[in-house]
Amino acid sequence: MNKYLNLDQTKAYNLLKEAVKKPINLKEILDVKRLRNYLIQNQPLNFSYATCLINDEIIDLFQALSEEQKVMEKYNALLSGEIVNIGENRKVLHHQPRSKSKGFYGEEQEKIAEFTAKIHGGELKGFSGKPFDTVVQIGIGGSDLGPRALYYALERYVLAKKGKVPLNAQFIANVDPDDANFQLSKINLETTLFIVVSKSGTTQETLTNLEFVKNFAKKHGMTDQDLAKHFIAVTGKGSPMDDPQQYLASFYIDDNIGGRFSSTSAVGGVVLSLAFGAEIFREFLDGAGQMDELAKEPNIRKNMTLMSALIGVWERNFLNFSSKAIIPYSEALLRFPAHLQQADCESNGKTVNIYFERIDYQTGPVIFGEPGTNAQHSFFQKLHQGSDVIPIQFIGFQKSQIENDLNLFGSTSLEKLNANLVAQIIALALGQDNDNLNKVFSGNRPTSLIFADKLTPYVLGALLAFYENVIMFQGFIWNINSFDQEGVQLGKILTKQVLSNTGEKNPVLENLYSFFRV
Amino acid sequence: MNKYLNLDQTKAYNLLKEAVKKPINLKEILDVKRLRNYLIQNQPLNFSYATCLINDEIIDLFQALSEEQKVMEKYNALLSGEIVNIGENRKVLHHQPRSKSKGFYGEEQEKIAEFTAKIHGGELKGFSGKPFDTVVQIGIGGSDLGPRALYYALERYVLAKKGKVPLNAQFIANVDPDDANFQLSKINLETTLFIVVSKSGTTQETLTNLEFVKNFAKKHGMTDQDLAKHFIAVTGKGSPMDDPQQYLASFYIDDNIGGRFSSTSAVGGVVLSLAFGAEIFREFLDGAGQMDELAKEPNIRKNMTLMSALIGVWERNFLNFSSKAIIPYSEALLRFPAHLQQADCESNGKTVNIYFERIDYQTGPVIFGEPGTNAQHSFFQKLHQGSDVIPIQFIGFQKSQIENDLNLFGSTSLEKLNANLVAQIIALALGQDNDNLNKVFSGNRPTSLIFADKLTPYVLGALLAFYENVIMFQGFIWNINSFDQEGVQLGKILTKQVLSNTGEKNPVLENLYSFFRV
Repeated sequence: MNKYLNLDQTKAYNLLKEAVKKPINLKEILDVKRLRNYLIQNQPLNFSYATCLINDEIIDLFQALSEEQKVMEKYNALLSGEIVNIGENRKVLHHQPRSKSKGFYGEEQEKIAEFTAKIHGGELKGFSGKPFDTVVQIGIGGSDLGPRALYYALERYVLAKKGKVPLNAQFIANVDPDDANFQLSKINLETTLFIVVSKSGTTQETLTNLEFVKNFAKKHGMTDQDLAKHFIAVTGKGSPMDDPQQYLASFYIDDNIGGRFSSTSAVGGVVLSLAFGAEIFREFLDGAGQMDELAKEPNIRKNMTLMSALIGVWERNFLNFSSKAIIPYSEALLRFPAHLQQADCESNGKTVNIYFERIDYQTGPVIFGEPGTNAQHSFFQKLHQGSDVIPIQFIGFQKSQIENDLNLFGSTSLEKLNANLVAQIIALALGQDNDNLNKVFSGNRPTSLIFADKLTPYVLGALLAFYENVIMFQGFIWNINSFDQEGVQLGKILTKQVLSNTGEKNPVLENLYSFFRV
Repeated sequence: MNKYLNLDQTKAYNLLKEAVKKPINLKEILDVKRLRNYLIQNQPLNFSYATCLINDEIIDLFQALSEEQKVMEKYNALLSGEIVNIGENRKVLHHQPRSKSKGFYGEEQEKIAEFTAKIHGGELKGFSGKPFDTVVQIGIGGSDLGPRALYYALERYVLAKKGKVPLNAQFIANVDPDDANFQLSKINLETTLFIVVSKSGTTQETLTNLEFVKNFAKKHGMTDQDLAKHFIAVTGKGSPMDDPQQYLASFYIDDNIGGRFSSTSAVGGVVLSLAFGAEIFREFLDGAGQMDELAKEPNIRKNMTLMSALIGVWERNFLNFSSKAIIPYSEALLRFPAHLQQADCESNGKTVNIYFERIDYQTGPVIFGEPGTNAQHSFFQKLHQGSDVIPIQFIGFQKSQIENDLNLFGSTSLEKLNANLVAQIIALALGQDNDNLNKVFSGNRPTSLIFADKLTPYVLGALLAFYENVIMFQGFIWNINSFDQEGVQLGKILTKQVLSNTGEKNPVLENLYSFFRV
């Protein structure tokens, strides 16, 4: 017998289906009191949800649903190391690297910090005796999107704090040869350290790009001995890539942390420590650990992670909104939505429950986003006046990272940035009437706002853990396994089938045809 | 009386509503014959739509709908300079810069080419006498996303062709001071030319960043005289920015080209010509002009632009799919989906028809995308097994831009890239059965494929015009005005209101409260 219920087997589900029949009108109820009440402060983050389409009655049902779906029981089971990734028979341990008892992951963190000190201190140098100034991460998916988004998120902060970024980072992910060729055109081989990241040590794109880079280096005169001074590995112990002959150092990850949740493991740790310093990565982990702790609070009115998760379920399964925009008002977070797109869509884009039974309700929405104010000048027309309602989660900060600003036309750039953010929230919530229908804004378009003092490493860690935990909680509520990704397997098999064909003049079309000729 | 019909007033609409009741099963009908038949070659582009959920009967109805909605009549009216942007009482002339009779836009192109020659030839130099090596575009929305996406799209091509990119381009868009500060930290003022782009000459973000940059330059010792050698303007004639005292040169745009359609005007022309050479920009325009011509074909089976537009309407209004992914298998196109997101969502995210009457059907979907193969390792789980069907348009090329490749493990990187592309199409169309429901792929997830020989400037122009014209055709079919953006106005007004407040300790929250205190 199944221990856990599907969403639509719960009592709260049916009550929420009733509740949604009484629409919430923000134009009538939004005021300072609601803004003050519908605010959760989980330091270092603040969460304002007064402009969501909910009321106290609905929040009570969220609480009931969270209890029926045993969200905290499941979270504790996961934290205590139970096999919660049932499909792959694995634990889910990405919280461990940021908890107090890190075990295996803590040892790797120490190795990373020691190695970083040797690189930054000049103890380890390139083959020609020059210190390293660049690090290139070769990896794809979770080994690329998360680390890359986090690198961009802290690049400006470290520049302002230290006067320079210790090692500039670049990334090679795509098997498109134009990716590797172009990145290689920008580096100096003598001063570049390559990090090769693949848990299995068998990822097609990553192995291809590794050999591509090595071939390039050899063409430029580097010997095998030289190469061994320029490559480090982040991989599973005993994987085909775990080979001290070929790598200056190896840092280990294991099967209990999935790619999209691996930014706080060595997958993110090596590149971020090398680029910024190990202490920056440690602050980042501490911020993540803080939010992991705060996410344990069972009272939804005190737990922004739980609240945001339930609001997402409400918007998806009851209000029937099929996509969600995440809009950071911070240029540093320009690729953060792309990382969350993977984290969310790959985790919760599912149609079977944890017992491999078909479910009949919607799961994860389409996640997309670009930084504000840029996004206002892009797709916000649709968010204000399009035929679908698209909920938005805004992210904002009280301070910039590079605290150099200018008062122009009566306000600083930062004040302008945040004035725009607030104006969007109000415009979407309250709308505007007009005799000309083209100038009518319907209002009641829901948003929420996460804000913090400043995008520091600590705050970034908190933000990342917040989103990871929202995704996990939503998986608990949908009764799905957020930690496997069977949906990517078929493509891999068919790719091999195509590559076993003999080449033709017009490969794309001929390759398509090849599936139908025997 | 209204001259043009709403979509749901047409006969074809009702027939398509009937047709959608008989589902298409690709698993039964997809074969080489269908692949060969459902292929349109509009050189330099090819369009394969065999894996869309359509058949001959439905295509006949597409043809009928196109005729009922007078798509070609509207296109011709637009091309001949009628006031088709009724809301703003403007012509829509973005096709002119790439047509044979360019008029005003042709004169600007000549000015740009002459100016570029002076910069590239060293006739014009920086204040300290050094030749320019960097160009920074200051602009937002259509003055940023399109030019930036196109710059990235051709950077590798020009590098391979010329050995180097004549001037490296950077972009400052966001009013977030971390954007300008960070970009400025990377440049050498002596060798940098700034392009300031704003049609009205009043865009808040752009004027702020212009002054921000000037202030930075003065702090670094540049005089007003020096500054005048480093700034050029792209703006409307007579705008507040049209000031020869402050700018080394001015290039004009006008109100008949909207921001999101301005990449082929001086908005894209100045930066792309300076970065790559005027002849590269001209090739790009020629490719766009070619597709504009081919889009005039009224027979849908010969016109990929019209076919793609109708397939989009079918997927949106009849199959009820609310989003669409655009996935280029080309790293060079990494920001092309972000540009198309603006172009589509800002144009067709509407709920009133051209007569300002409310319409009761869905318009433009959420557009999103990342390059493949990266996207496979990100959100493709959801595309294969998620609870919603999300149509995908793939873009692929027979050759890479930097034609340096390596045969590894039996295939080149390019062959691997394109094998992945084809495998995704097949996996999504045909799916896979399995006793374990977690390994089941439903199939019948629709895709289409645009492919070309190589991403040259000509092909890029063709691709851009294809998408612009698809968006335009869909607007014609929905009977909406794709050329205004009233939905962005309210936010601007409310931003001013916030900025007129006096500052408080905690601006974000206090600013939210300020809307409710009198």
